[in-house]
Amino acid sequence: MSEDLKNQDEFVKEITPKSIDFSRWYTDVIRKAKMADYTPIKGCMVIMPYGFSLWENMQGILDSMIKDTGHKNCYFPMFITESMLKKEADHVEGFAPEVAWVTKAGTTELEEPLVLRATSEPVICTMYSKWIKSYRDLPLLYNQWANIIRWEKVTRLFLRTTEFLWQEGHTVHRTESDAEEETIKMLDVYNTFIEKYLAVPVIVGKKTESEKFAGALRTYTLEALMSDGKALQMGTSHNLGQHFAKVFDIRFLDEDQLEKYAWQTSWGVTTRLIGSVIMVHGDDRGLILPPMIAPTQAVIVPIIFEKSKGQVIEKVEKLHQNLKAKFRIESDTRDEYSSGWKYNEYEMKGVPIRIEIGPKDVKNNQVVLVRRDTGEKIFVKDEEIESELTRLISDIQNNLFAVAENFRKKNIHLTDTYKEFKEIMENKRGFLLAHWCGSAECENKIKKETTATIRCIPIKDRDRMIEKGKCICCNGESSERVYFAKAY
Amino acid sequence: MSEDLKNQDEFVKEITPKSIDFSRWYTDVIRKAKMADYTPIKGCMVIMPYGFSLWENMQGILDSMIKDTGHKNCYFPMFITESMLKKEADHVEGFAPEVAWVTKAGTTELEEPLVLRATSEPVICTMYSKWIKSYRDLPLLYNQWANIIRWEKVTRLFLRTTEFLWQEGHTVHRTESDAEEETIKMLDVYNTFIEKYLAVPVIVGKKTESEKFAGALRTYTLEALMSDGKALQMGTSHNLGQHFAKVFDIRFLDEDQLEKYAWQTSWGVTTRLIGSVIMVHGDDRGLILPPMIAPTQAVIVPIIFEKSKGQVIEKVEKLHQNLKAKFRIESDTRDEYSSGWKYNEYEMKGVPIRIEIGPKDVKNNQVVLVRRDTGEKIFVKDEEIESELTRLISDIQNNLFAVAENFRKKNIHLTDTYKEFKEIMENKRGFLLAHWCGSAECENKIKKETTATIRCIPIKDRDRMIEKGKCICCNGESSERVYFAKAY
Repeated sequence: MSEDLKNQDEFVKEITPKSIDFSRWYTDVIRKAKMADYTPIKGCMVIMPYGFSLWENMQGILDSMIKDTGHKNCYFPMFITESMLKKEADHVEGFAPEVAWVTKAGTTELEEPLVLRATSEPVICTMYSKWIKSYRDLPLLYNQWANIIRWEKVTRLFLRTTEFLWQEGHTVHRTESDAEEETIKMLDVYNTFIEKYLAVPVIVGKKTESEKFAGALRTYTLEALMSDGKALQMGTSHNLGQHFAKVFDIRFLDEDQLEKYAWQTSWGVTTRLIGSVIMVHGDDRGLILPPMIAPTQAVIVPIIFEKSKGQVIEKVEKLHQNLKAKFRIESDTRDEYSSGWKYNEYEMKGVPIRIEIGPKDVKNNQVVLVRRDTGEKIFVKDEEIESELTRLISDIQNNLFAVAENFRKKNIHLTDTYKEFKEIMENKRGFLLAHWCGSAECENKIKKETTATIRCIPIKDRDRMIEKGKCICCNGESSERVYFAKAY
Repeated sequence: MSEDLKNQDEFVKEITPKSIDFSRWYTDVIRKAKMADYTPIKGCMVIMPYGFSLWENMQGILDSMIKDTGHKNCYFPMFITESMLKKEADHVEGFAPEVAWVTKAGTTELEEPLVLRATSEPVICTMYSKWIKSYRDLPLLYNQWANIIRWEKVTRLFLRTTEFLWQEGHTVHRTESDAEEETIKMLDVYNTFIEKYLAVPVIVGKKTESEKFAGALRTYTLEALMSDGKALQMGTSHNLGQHFAKVFDIRFLDEDQLEKYAWQTSWGVTTRLIGSVIMVHGDDRGLILPPMIAPTQAVIVPIIFEKSKGQVIEKVEKLHQNLKAKFRIESDTRDEYSSGWKYNEYEMKGVPIRIEIGPKDVKNNQVVLVRRDTGEKIFVKDEEIESELTRLISDIQNNLFAVAENFRKKNIHLTDTYKEFKEIMENKRGFLLAHWCGSAECENKIKKETTATIRCIPIKDRDRMIEKGKCICCNGESSERVYFAKAY
């Protein structure tokens, strides 16, 4: 928070270059841009206003998309009883090691200890069992925005913290195919949201048996490539089948008067998406935020000389007034900082467009627009500022996606030998598109020897590569390549 | 959820009349309108989509008001360490009896147990101490929307649950007067929000020493009268003085180069506001929701006869299309329910306006509007529907406030003897406007003997009654009346 003069140097001091230490670069950027900060509570962070405002913009867009597809928001308790948690065997096995236990309230020991939600299936299924009676109650399409607790050993700002924020959709359907359709529909919603608004290209596919959600029939995922060559799971959509319905007793009377177990899905994305935006787009000068989600789309910075100060400030304020209904705009007329210092600051904060106004610009009825992504300077006449901003916002958004897609293209490596696989994984990283026989044995062996995991078995034509081949590990038959990567 | 025919009877069955059992009426309405439901987790409820949508509308409005007054949203961890909690002596004394303790994660006992936030001062002040260095960092105006845990012995849907949702503002200032100004400013924001949007009149004032927030210098409150004559605290705004700054070491270097402790405020409202809307406006037919926050402002119900069905449905759908951009509107064209059943249902859900369309209305180019608050029927020509809806929404909103204010007026009783005080408190309830000497002794005695508490010492001219008098309890001197009531 401090903006003392003595701290200015530190503030504009170069952040650790990405190429030197990616992990330090990531943390430096987050802390210097004031997106988040560590707390004394192990593994927990504060999401500071600048980071939270980015999350609010993302949340607003995704929330509309979730509602437009017929879902309704609600709020379930954050507590889960021990007996609820233990109902679904795979689920408890998956989550038990990382759940937090409330054992005492005031000075009283609880009779039955409670778990803090690491995901809400147990409490939600308990209520669904009570609410659902007839096929007329289906589909039931609920979503909630909530905080989640998972006790993590190694934590990293936004990517893996003990507490994080997410949305979790929980739906109930009449048939298996209805549930599968919903699972894929929400996967597509995430795909559109992430690519269009976050400008992050994803590979969409199915998780292997060993990587799927604890208790699910099938898990689908969206995988993105960070600029250090590691993959990040951006979101998941689970077809839960009837596993939970059977143990939580979610039955309905169908139109044919037969009692049946319901089919369910769940799907979620988290505040880790903020981490992906930082890692995919940022550079050595700091953040680069996609304009469609940036807290500030353009910042107006005056260039002040004593003689012309009045005119310049007047123009800045008039422009701010004119643009603020249409754009998320700020102006910084503070005296105690130089315009050069401000350029650095807003570059670090990743503001997509800087609008410079100096005495010459007042005289020439123009402004100078500077793009954060390319550094390009554009002189624009006053009457064209609004249309040029609109154009630039769309152009920057598209360019960020194109740059990221290009990077990913260069970092998808086809490989057919385990030796080469290991070499690439060791040196270049990226996605390795390789043949796999389908056995958990090979999957585990590769994971153990290289730390790379199968990120997904792609399901979209754009991502698939169907062809006969040999498993890189055991030489067994394979009919299609899958994506491997080291992952966060 | 079930809408089986066999359940229809139960669904429209009359709810317990308010006059017979207010508390059962309240619970019946909430559960039949599907606003919330109990869970097997002690003291915890689910906020169901209809209740949550009301909350989202309230939240959207209040969030804008909070941002328009210069505050920024952020998110702090829900955990508080034992040592943080114990720093401020009054605060720990106030909250220790009702905090939940996390003592274990996975199978490991925690070295230092963690408390779930019952309010966030301890964790927020810890971070503020780190962030605030200079007067230039002030004022710091942050807010968060979060879930809160307080272990309650007796719980009631929305009004008092172990977990609830709220917003909590936490601000830091340079001077005492800046902090007091902020405290009053946010009290005024709440006042406007509650009266204008929730249509609930409030009395605004200061809490007594014994009723103030644990650790605060002064607590201000907004108190409303429910239709059973009991008061509900609607929100509070605290001037924290320097209490927390001193124990959490929040110091700044002032312009005069002297190090000073900062001045702080905090303020919050919770999901209990939903309870107030139900209790203030509802009647024996169910909810009555203020149109400005109602999830559905108007519902279109067709009156269907086999012969004219096509035309009627066509008109319903066209009207829905035309109105949906301007109003929160729904139409219910389901075949399996009669129009009469639907009237009951939407009355129970408190939808402010019903739009009936039958064959006669198609012929006459009209619709019938029915007000939920007064039952009034209005025939409106097709071309005037939009303007009439706009007028009605404002009229219903104003009428709900006027009715509530009228009720409150009738239930503010001036009394000058303790005997009468006790009688009224026993039989009629309401606000008792009486003299009090200012001593905690009398306050406690009255509380013990009547269960009534001093809701507030009013601070607004509209609510105040300044005159010399004698304390109803001890006959001591008093210069102004204060508000007593039994409260939730």
